Amino acid sequence: MEQRVSFVTLAVRDLDRSRAFYVGGLQWSPELDVPGEVLMFAAGDRLVLSLWDRAAFEEELGVPAFDDDRPVPMTLAHNVATPQEVRDVLALAARAGAPLWGPVEREWGGFTGYFADPDGFRWEVAWNPGPIGVRVLPDTDVDARP
Amino acid sequence: MEQRVSFVTLAVRDLDRSRAFYVGGLQWSPELDVPGEVLMFAAGDRLVLSLWDRAAFEEELGVPAFDDDRPVPMTLAHNVATPQEVRDVLALAARAGAPLWGPVEREWGGFTGYFADPDGFRWEVAWNPGPIGVRVLPDTDVDARP
Repeated sequence: MEQRVSFVTLAVRDLDRSRAFYVGGLQWSPELDVPGEVLMFAAGDRLVLSLWDRAAFEEELGVPAFDDDRPVPMTLAHNVATPQEVRDVLALAARAGAPLWGPVEREWGGFTGYFADPDGFRWEVAWNPGPIGVRVLPDTDVDARP
Repeated sequence: MEQRVSFVTLAVRDLDRSRAFYVGGLQWSPELDVPGEVLMFAAGDRLVLSLWDRAAFEEELGVPAFDDDRPVPMTLAHNVATPQEVRDVLALAARAGAPLWGPVEREWGGFTGYFADPDGFRWEVAWNPGPIGVRVLPDTDVDARP
């Protein structure tokens, strides 16, 4: 099995609300938009972020564990090249209505904060000056990485 | 904000069990392995899959919603080029001890099934002959995609 994630799919309760947040607020451009069903975004060279209507998710996978007051046990990170960009992206998310946590300096040397999308999925906005943090940045030449 | 997911982080209860599954079973190679803390894998050109000790996750984000008998409200997909590869990857996951669902033909034209990792995170192994399915495959020239 190759080491590849092709899609990250999040079950969302109200696609119109998700569209307003990701497209209207974060200013992402959809790759596919089927109202009431699914909203997909290119999120990397060969990666798609898919927001899938919760009812359809439940039909295929069952009713998920969910609690409005608790996080889901996963996060998505958006890495950036400077601490200032961490602040800028979190400010954009806040203007789009997202709750924020941080940003704070982490003991491992980074500077990160979180925002939550309308379904509570947590995005970490991260400046990570270590080798793994650098290699995920868009300006890094893939072939030249350590 | 650029449309980029840099890390997918999953909170796991037992990193040794996760390592046995992903490294021993699925035969992935870690990018970083800090026993008891975190296990990271390259999962795309600029994407890292991070398995993070649940206790550390809880300290930073709070206690997540979780239920052993229900899925989390998200999935990761691993897309492949043929239906036979769907069967092959699912068979590998089954040999590693994962429960399976499917594979079945989907009404949208694909052929997919799921396996669960030791914490119940669902991986969809998918053959998707549509344009979005093709563009995430490793053999597709990024610059030549529709």
